[in-house]
Amino acid sequence: MAVCSSVFQIKTDGFSDIKEITPKVENAIGKSNISNGIAVVFVPGSTAGITTIEFEPGVIEDLKKAIERLAPQNIHYDHNARWGDGNGFAHVRAALLGPSISVPFSDGHMCLGTWQQIVLVDFDNRLRTREIFVQVIGE
Amino acid sequence: MAVCSSVFQIKTDGFSDIKEITPKVENAIGKSNISNGIAVVFVPGSTAGITTIEFEPGVIEDLKKAIERLAPQNIHYDHNARWGDGNGFAHVRAALLGPSISVPFSDGHMCLGTWQQIVLVDFDNRLRTREIFVQVIGE
Amino acid sequence: MAVCSSVFQIKTDGFSDIKEITPKVENAIGKSNISNGIAVVFVPGSTAGITTIEFEPGVIEDLKKAIERLAPQNIHYDHNARWGDGNGFAHVRAALLGPSISVPFSDGHMCLGTWQQIVLVDFDNRLRTREIFVQVIGE
Repeated sequence: MAVCSSVFQIKTDGFSDIKEITPKVENAIGKSNISNGIAVVFVPGSTAGITTIEFEPGVIEDLKKAIERLAPQNIHYDHNARWGDGNGFAHVRAALLGPSISVPFSDGHMCLGTWQQIVLVDFDNRLRTREIFVQVIGE
Repeated sequence: MAVCSSVFQIKTDGFSDIKEITPKVENAIGKSNISNGIAVVFVPGSTAGITTIEFEPGVIEDLKKAIERLAPQNIHYDHNARWGDGNGFAHVRAALLGPSISVPFSDGHMCLGTWQQIVLVDFDNRLRTREIFVQVIGE
Repeated sequence: MAVCSSVFQIKTDGFSDIKEITPKVENAIGKSNISNGIAVVFVPGSTAGITTIEFEPGVIEDLKKAIERLAPQNIHYDHNARWGDGNGFAHVRAALLGPSISVPFSDGHMCLGTWQQIVLVDFDNRLRTREIFVQVIGE
């Protein structure tokens, strides 16, 4: 059994920008020399989240619209009234989606579906460079 | 420390069909000979999710209605316009719920509440046979 | 590699009461003597959830309002009709948020963002004393 930590960076445009990160997670698993285990993918920060989706433009647009219905950008947010940074919607969205995902892998291959990709969703209201943390545990 | 991988199948009716899978996860833990650790339950595919709930018919119906409010079946989805498979709502719902859950266990017993069961929610728009992957890690 | 299990208690007021538990999770990691790994934080029970958020009063209020939009307290719930305990909204909310989170740590420090805290959200409709289970795995 072993633990292998990796970090990579990814630039986003914010405003629910959705970036595929599957190859980066595969790299983290590959360099770990761990064959069977889990990869825990975590985004530090309180205005972004991690999930899986079929990464095609139609679904991506559909997800963005659902997120806007869930926590609309242009309603009142107490966070904005207190701090003035205008990203209250981003904090709420991130708390609801969650900052991490855990993916099992066997013989070095994650058990993702054929049309299932791991994505970062950046909810913030500006350009960001995010660090993504991948903890690989197994044997 | 060890890792033990299990896969089981479950048939669903789609359309937010919710199936209890707690006994299957217990079986995966039992056959692992691991006493203390975590079970990572993951559904491959981009139109299903995993969560926990009190598995009784009333709450199940309530959850289905909440999911319909969150991403209604009969609104426009770009995914449907592009691909014609009519399950855009299923992709959005799955991305919001997430494909996995991690449950700690001690002395072979998961730390679930008395009325808390692990469930698969299949959002797709047709009958499916799902494979569920359980990665047990511990000692 | 090792596994270290911890449990702590926390009192809540229910009704989406949000309690910060980051220091409790840090304690569980500290006493484990594990330097690198993951902490899986899990709340037993079907009316509470775990996520991360910037723990300041404005965002907390904003999240509560979003949760109320997602599954309003005063609509019909089949669970209430069957069981009469009036907390159908709490079950639905908990199923959507999820009962656990996994956080990587290195050199004993979780990879949380500066303004990102781990929180328990108690959706039930009464005072509760919750047990939170933390499973630390690593080396």
